[in-house]
Amino acid sequence: MVDIATRVWNHKWKIDPIVRSLIDTDFYKLLMCQSVFRNRRDVQVTFSLINRTKSIRLADLVDEGELREQLDYVRSLSLTRGESTWMRGNTFYGKRQMFTPDFMDWFEKLRLPPYHLEKRDGQYELTFEGSWPEVMLWEIPALAILMELRSRAVLRDMGRFELQVLYARAMTKVWEKVKRLNTHPGLKIADFGTRRRHSFLWQDWCVQALQEGLGDAFTGTSNCLIAKNRDMEAIGTNAHELPMVYAALADDDTALRRAPYDVLADWQAEHDGNLRIILPDTYGTPGFLSGAPDWLAGWTGIRIDSGDPAEGAEAAIRWWQSRGEDPTTKLVIFSDGLDVDKILELHARFAGRVRVSFGWGTMLTNDFIGLVDGDALAPFSLVCKAVAADGRPTVKLSDNPNKAMGPAAEIARYKRVFGVGAQERVEVVV
Amino acid sequence: MVDIATRVWNHKWKIDPIVRSLIDTDFYKLLMCQSVFRNRRDVQVTFSLINRTKSIRLADLVDEGELREQLDYVRSLSLTRGESTWMRGNTFYGKRQMFTPDFMDWFEKLRLPPYHLEKRDGQYELTFEGSWPEVMLWEIPALAILMELRSRAVLRDMGRFELQVLYARAMTKVWEKVKRLNTHPGLKIADFGTRRRHSFLWQDWCVQALQEGLGDAFTGTSNCLIAKNRDMEAIGTNAHELPMVYAALADDDTALRRAPYDVLADWQAEHDGNLRIILPDTYGTPGFLSGAPDWLAGWTGIRIDSGDPAEGAEAAIRWWQSRGEDPTTKLVIFSDGLDVDKILELHARFAGRVRVSFGWGTMLTNDFIGLVDGDALAPFSLVCKAVAADGRPTVKLSDNPNKAMGPAAEIARYKRVFGVGAQERVEVVV
Repeated sequence: MVDIATRVWNHKWKIDPIVRSLIDTDFYKLLMCQSVFRNRRDVQVTFSLINRTKSIRLADLVDEGELREQLDYVRSLSLTRGESTWMRGNTFYGKRQMFTPDFMDWFEKLRLPPYHLEKRDGQYELTFEGSWPEVMLWEIPALAILMELRSRAVLRDMGRFELQVLYARAMTKVWEKVKRLNTHPGLKIADFGTRRRHSFLWQDWCVQALQEGLGDAFTGTSNCLIAKNRDMEAIGTNAHELPMVYAALADDDTALRRAPYDVLADWQAEHDGNLRIILPDTYGTPGFLSGAPDWLAGWTGIRIDSGDPAEGAEAAIRWWQSRGEDPTTKLVIFSDGLDVDKILELHARFAGRVRVSFGWGTMLTNDFIGLVDGDALAPFSLVCKAVAADGRPTVKLSDNPNKAMGPAAEIARYKRVFGVGAQERVEVVV
Repeated sequence: MVDIATRVWNHKWKIDPIVRSLIDTDFYKLLMCQSVFRNRRDVQVTFSLINRTKSIRLADLVDEGELREQLDYVRSLSLTRGESTWMRGNTFYGKRQMFTPDFMDWFEKLRLPPYHLEKRDGQYELTFEGSWPEVMLWEIPALAILMELRSRAVLRDMGRFELQVLYARAMTKVWEKVKRLNTHPGLKIADFGTRRRHSFLWQDWCVQALQEGLGDAFTGTSNCLIAKNRDMEAIGTNAHELPMVYAALADDDTALRRAPYDVLADWQAEHDGNLRIILPDTYGTPGFLSGAPDWLAGWTGIRIDSGDPAEGAEAAIRWWQSRGEDPTTKLVIFSDGLDVDKILELHARFAGRVRVSFGWGTMLTNDFIGLVDGDALAPFSLVCKAVAADGRPTVKLSDNPNKAMGPAAEIARYKRVFGVGAQERVEVVV
């Protein structure tokens, strides 16, 4: 029986919105937003879209009118009552009332600020300016919208059965990954794939497939809307934007050197347990660890997000040992460029030596590699980053020079201040 | 939006019926039924289910109660008004009123006769007795029900996403076949997969995928219900049961020798054009062709359904040439054990020499080979055949001794009468 009302309702849509909820975003964005709201709510920031894969000419693929419609739609969203209830009432990381009443009062009234969009050299220049806690919430919707508009552009001319078989193949790919992971007991894997997903519905499918296929090895999703709808754990801690903005705001080299630790001091005032996760690579992991105060060694774990992940984890283990900590009690979260081979390799090497966990992103929710002609659905490296704070440029070095960003002079200064020497270049695919 | 009425309606079903229409059957069954109704309606026949793949213990896999419910459901069916309108009003093979008013009057009143079911040695003994035009219509539903109940038994304990991925893989398999066929222009392929399909919905999917994927190379389906619902050509001519029953009714060797030609004389009185297709292998193709009257050489084509198909087609070409016919005007329909390799091989060899056409069956609608553990969904060789007519056993020799059936003494007699010498054994997979 055709549900006539649904059919007619669908026909009334002016657009098929990609992001339909303010919590269709990563959980760590909300945690960080609350932290920023509490500590630095008046900082004015600029976020900017950066396509690191220049060969994908997004402005040629994606219609500007459609992009504007999608971005405008996100600006029309506000937190729904059910979403607010979930954020206020749910237990996150074992804690009730993770989000404070004053933050929720603010978030319930929030609408996302304006965007600025221009085309240049086949790419979109998409920027967001305004107060930090508002602008930062654009990152994930902006990325998800561009990724999905690109998917739609590629799929536009395909036949009905051709499309069904395309998704059939993609499902089979995900399931084969699940089956391989299943042969290795003790894995802990979460979905971190929101920002570069093929589409919302596809991420939702992948997450549910992981839940059925991996059982206890599946720990949850970073996507708050999916976590809420599917009654899963929302997963995430913090990201580079905190130290990047704190660092940009530093008035001199001494303050700059201290900035990454200031971030974590603020974080420690709010969070404990499995949320006390160090992200050490913003200005180089070796310098960060050697200069870290002792209280940081007491934190629960570390997230390895650039450079060679095994080296990063080995460095963390040596560091904990040097500070008299027992690495076997520590959590190491790998989240950079993971796929099954890498997950299994890292698990084999570190299981038992530390508590290992994986945040599986793009290659979970956007592995359409090899499925269409010319590989036109292959994922690519799109990011949306804080590029300025209170008028000063931000800088990121990371453990991979190919992921560095910021003005050259500032990069040089940061390298000097943080004592970053030679780094190995690792190709950034996704 | 959930369609509540549909959900509640579905919950009310006592069973999920496999065969829901009297025209969920092969088109040639209806053509033959009309022919039998016209020429031999009072002959009493016995049809019997035969599982040629003894390793599949159907009675262990399929619950007897469920099987009875499905068979009983088919007995509750009668031709609907829309089905009758389609049969009376549609154009088949370019002809209006293919089905005569007196046949339609009879068919509209028809209910299928009783069945007899017993278990023996892990197999079901399923037989149907009664007048030929009624009993013959049990063949396809009986096969389709047993095939689908077996599928359901295998799928019963699978998870929701595991199931979706299973079908994703099967769809991908079909589509890869379509893509390979698409690289060879000039193919003509019809679906002949009703009897051994994985399930009705799966056949319906496969047929639609072929329509989109093959375009003009797809000529239609043997399944009348799908042809009606999807507005496709219904495809089919005649089968072995006609010569088998005519032969069983022959009173002496002379009449027996003439029986296969009597069948086609009756057929010629009813049909012309692309329905004048010889099925020569019931008692051996070489003897059939050499003994054939000249008027048969004037028929449109031949269907090759056993033995080595290339040899069969070469024999037909030589025969047409010996009778002064131009083979390039003749249609050769291959319908035995086809899959892509075989289709492409036969097409390459015969395109241009004759008009080539393919009836693609089990490996189109039931290729789940390699998709579940233990290959528990692999197709197998289930048939439902006329085994007796007016109390006399039927015999089939075919061009492959592994497909022969009948009492040994009668097989010997038929071999003598039809001059069948040594035959090559070909393994019967599906």
